[in-house]
Amino acid sequence: MNTDSELQNPEWRSSCPIASGLDILGDKWSLIIVRDLIEHSSRTYSEFASSPEGISTNILASRLKWLESLSIIERINPDKPSRNNAFQLTQRGKALRPVLEELGKWSQIHLKEIHPTIVKII
Amino acid sequence: MNTDSELQNPEWRSSCPIASGLDILGDKWSLIIVRDLIEHSSRTYSEFASSPEGISTNILASRLKWLESLSIIERINPDKPSRNNAFQLTQRGKALRPVLEELGKWSQIHLKEIHPTIVKII
Repeated sequence: MNTDSELQNPEWRSSCPIASGLDILGDKWSLIIVRDLIEHSSRTYSEFASSPEGISTNILASRLKWLESLSIIERINPDKPSRNNAFQLTQRGKALRPVLEELGKWSQIHLKEIHPTIVKII
Repeated sequence: MNTDSELQNPEWRSSCPIASGLDILGDKWSLIIVRDLIEHSSRTYSEFASSPEGISTNILASRLKWLESLSIIERINPDKPSRNNAFQLTQRGKALRPVLEELGKWSQIHLKEIHPTIVKII
């Protein structure tokens, strides 16, 4: 668990659950990391970096820290932290699967006209 | 329909539908606008601005233009554009409802420990 107090106290814009979900996951990368862990069960830093979206190392490090602080992901061997540690989803993280599935379904149907190479992944 | 070519050609990071959805909706505000239109059917600029999250006017204008360019929202009276025009969801926008519902459900269950005032909205 990350001890940075800022990370553990997100700024909530309102009491709306949708807005609150976006407060912590409303960016282009956090759910890509969750997606990789749904597909692959566990993933090291360098494996995340090799995903086709080409996440930069500083954004990857920042998002991993953020998702770990929220107990959405966790290190498999927390006692031996290193760059080669693999991460996995917690129960809280695994529970995001329906959100990703609905987003993926929507995109497949509604973006195919404007995205020439979109495919089905999960 | 917005004629800004940049707006109509999002940069796709990959062929993954989840990543592609996040390419266009992965921010803290776009889905708040969609949420408001699911709740209220139609919404003017000033009504969006009065939502509890306190969106700034420049972000609101930018996101409305973006969502309109993607045919996720549309003006109710497109022939008379003005700041008082109301917006509504297109079919493509209405189809985002399950994404928001799953995100809201996840947040209600998994954020209640860290969000003292989270409530059920839709």
